[in-house]
Amino acid sequence: MRKRHESDDAADTLKRYEQYAREIAELIESQALKPGSRLPSVRQASAQRRISPSTVFQAYYLLEARGLISSRPRSGYYVNARRAPQDSEPLVHAPPEQSSDVAISDLVFQVIGSAKSRDMVPLGSAFPSPTLFPLQALARHLAASMKRLDPWRTVEDLTPGSLRLRRQISLRHVVNGTNVHADEIVITNGAMEALTLCLQATTQPGDIVAIESPSFYAALQSLERLKLRAVQVATHPRFGVDLDSLRKVLDRHAVKACWFMTNFQNPLGSLMRAQDKQAMVELLASRGIPLIEDDVYGELYFGAQRPPSAKTYDREGLVLHCSSFSKCLAPGYRVGWVAAGRYAQRIERAKLMTTLSAAVPSQEALSAYLDQGGYDRHLRRLRQALQTQQGIALDLIAAHFPKGTRVTRPEGGYFLWLEMPSSVDALQLHRFALSHNISVAPGHLFATDARFAHCVRINYGHPDDPRFAAALKTLARLTTPRLR
Amino acid sequence: MRKRHESDDAADTLKRYEQYAREIAELIESQALKPGSRLPSVRQASAQRRISPSTVFQAYYLLEARGLISSRPRSGYYVNARRAPQDSEPLVHAPPEQSSDVAISDLVFQVIGSAKSRDMVPLGSAFPSPTLFPLQALARHLAASMKRLDPWRTVEDLTPGSLRLRRQISLRHVVNGTNVHADEIVITNGAMEALTLCLQATTQPGDIVAIESPSFYAALQSLERLKLRAVQVATHPRFGVDLDSLRKVLDRHAVKACWFMTNFQNPLGSLMRAQDKQAMVELLASRGIPLIEDDVYGELYFGAQRPPSAKTYDREGLVLHCSSFSKCLAPGYRVGWVAAGRYAQRIERAKLMTTLSAAVPSQEALSAYLDQGGYDRHLRRLRQALQTQQGIALDLIAAHFPKGTRVTRPEGGYFLWLEMPSSVDALQLHRFALSHNISVAPGHLFATDARFAHCVRINYGHPDDPRFAAALKTLARLTTPRLR
Repeated sequence: MRKRHESDDAADTLKRYEQYAREIAELIESQALKPGSRLPSVRQASAQRRISPSTVFQAYYLLEARGLISSRPRSGYYVNARRAPQDSEPLVHAPPEQSSDVAISDLVFQVIGSAKSRDMVPLGSAFPSPTLFPLQALARHLAASMKRLDPWRTVEDLTPGSLRLRRQISLRHVVNGTNVHADEIVITNGAMEALTLCLQATTQPGDIVAIESPSFYAALQSLERLKLRAVQVATHPRFGVDLDSLRKVLDRHAVKACWFMTNFQNPLGSLMRAQDKQAMVELLASRGIPLIEDDVYGELYFGAQRPPSAKTYDREGLVLHCSSFSKCLAPGYRVGWVAAGRYAQRIERAKLMTTLSAAVPSQEALSAYLDQGGYDRHLRRLRQALQTQQGIALDLIAAHFPKGTRVTRPEGGYFLWLEMPSSVDALQLHRFALSHNISVAPGHLFATDARFAHCVRINYGHPDDPRFAAALKTLARLTTPRLR
Repeated sequence: MRKRHESDDAADTLKRYEQYAREIAELIESQALKPGSRLPSVRQASAQRRISPSTVFQAYYLLEARGLISSRPRSGYYVNARRAPQDSEPLVHAPPEQSSDVAISDLVFQVIGSAKSRDMVPLGSAFPSPTLFPLQALARHLAASMKRLDPWRTVEDLTPGSLRLRRQISLRHVVNGTNVHADEIVITNGAMEALTLCLQATTQPGDIVAIESPSFYAALQSLERLKLRAVQVATHPRFGVDLDSLRKVLDRHAVKACWFMTNFQNPLGSLMRAQDKQAMVELLASRGIPLIEDDVYGELYFGAQRPPSAKTYDREGLVLHCSSFSKCLAPGYRVGWVAAGRYAQRIERAKLMTTLSAAVPSQEALSAYLDQGGYDRHLRRLRQALQTQQGIALDLIAAHFPKGTRVTRPEGGYFLWLEMPSSVDALQLHRFALSHNISVAPGHLFATDARFAHCVRINYGHPDDPRFAAALKTLARLTTPRLR
């Protein structure tokens, strides 16, 4: 009992200094606090805000780690010059107007397969560091719940999946303002299966699917595998799917489904604004087009609260909301889900016919963990670690990459998208980097053509990797033509 | 240490009395011991064989439980009259010569969905009783292995799956005489995913796939889902796929793949003879046709040793051998695999694109369990429980079902296939049975037409269910027209 109480206290403190740091960050962002201006001293701030000096100090320390402020000896804390001014943001590249077949898989497997070794600094990885997750706590819940498991649950918890877990997922949706009932949730083997099942439930081979540009290579691979045609929608590096572009695409093509990542899109990190999500859902609903919403990064926000999913605005059961625990809690457990609206039964049956069900031990462990209530505390720590590391990465990029390099500054997730001078060939960079034991994800993987051949996606989700800074500097050096 | 030693002794004793019982059963089977003849007394047998009286007694007790012998007070043990003479074996029904689209899924889901409650006596279930499995031991291994898991394994054990587990599976293959290397094994979410991936790797929509007749409804559902056409091959209730029928089918149709269950086929329980398997593999190889071998029941044999898989005779890498731990060790863990021969890379990539990987905790638990060495002991107990229960079921059927009922007598697995007088409608029987809280699997589920409308599949894999005998008697009563 005592132990539990202590960690609750710890959680509260964590929240208080984070809250204070966030307020200051917003003042800096809005330029109410200008570069060079001095922050109140720790003693002043503590008195004004009626918070402990150590809370102020922790907040300042966090802001410093994120590169927003600097301490000057015997003088105090000062706001830094802006590090990623908006004019260094990557450009929106108009995708081709035609739909196209997809033939990307071989390249993807070749690039990913080349970077599997643990010796590699995983800047090209799709996964955050597994050390960021409470694997020990999960193992304890796994052990306890499987020891007392009613054997019949191994039969009864088959698809659509454990009712207890579906209720917990439903509850999290409801807390976030999305009305999702446990009955429309189907537990899957990670989000990847959810997305595949959604595509199969909404399309036939030869159909056209709208995707982002650039788009996650797994989406491209799925389309290729299912013999679907892709039409790409212009995607803003900060605000995601461009609604004008989407409208034009819908006017021009018989789109049967959309597959969009509304929150912290892979690879851009873009976050659609709430009003854009709502407008998009209404636009698609007016044409009866289902939206497959890939929301696997939604919990990894750096802002004050979880951004809403497009599903929040779904009145017609046309949004198939896919997510998982793989990126925010339990990598390797392979538990994802889809809240499938009017497609729920079709998806449930397709799942029964392809993989029967998700693993019962994984479902049980997650149910037990979620019941116990440590999830939000873990998420706060995870978000903070990622946000801090993003600051480090952006500083390194600003300091070392060649002039003309543009970079995103996402409000969540663990990817940066770098647009380099057009002379840079990202595939060549990938090969050079490999020879230095560094992986990167070249822009070629994220489109049906070579439009992003001068871009790379950088994973900053490995804050515990001591090789990160050196690897980023090496990459910068390899990118600068005269030094190659 | 002492405890381990004791259970090793127990295992040896188990083997000895089982071995003796098996020898007597073979004498009875071959009619060397005729019905009505008296077995040696326990004292005589003990002296002759130099085994302990208790071993003899255990063997006799086992044979009695299986219905092969009976004790008469103060007189001894006598061989029973043959219970399932060969002329009561179900007939081979010639399947239609044409290939056909498949439209069975709705019926399958309707029938299965109606029988989900735990109140139901699960004669229609596809699963054996979960209480037959060492779930507690698995939970212990799960706990221990996940507590000491290197976090990076959650990334590295993605498809093709844990190398340790693939090596263990390879070793079991090799012990059984099948040369399967860990490199051609892909770990899947149960056999169901393995089979689906195999179909996708070997066919295109519209292609023709040869299946058995009757065939497992999940195979029919998969063909339906993947828009494949089925051509059915006559299947003998004891010896499985009829090679003459297969040859004719191959001459007549452009078969792109075969999906056969070589060992204890669902629903017939048929076991292909080793020479037939070899001839089949050679026949298919001569035409370059891949064989998807569904071997999920192979470990559940009642004979002296595991029957070989068709994969044993594969020289061309054309046999895709699928199996899982779900039916013999770890229900709900969702770990299966395919030894995919020349299709291994294609399957690995397809798996990455659909479900990414199997759950790491499940893979770890099974690796740890297999390392520790209790698997064969568990399997011996499981086989014995199933064989004993088969005897009980066959006795009840012989005693209570109407004249003209034919029944299989499989040498493994946990299904019986009943062919009833042609006046019986199995779907109606299914509905009547439901109202008595009994499920059955009507023959309609196992073919593309109503050829097996007078047949049912009975699951005897729930020896711990005290309602089993009464349910079978009720079913017999419902089958007898004048009593309805």
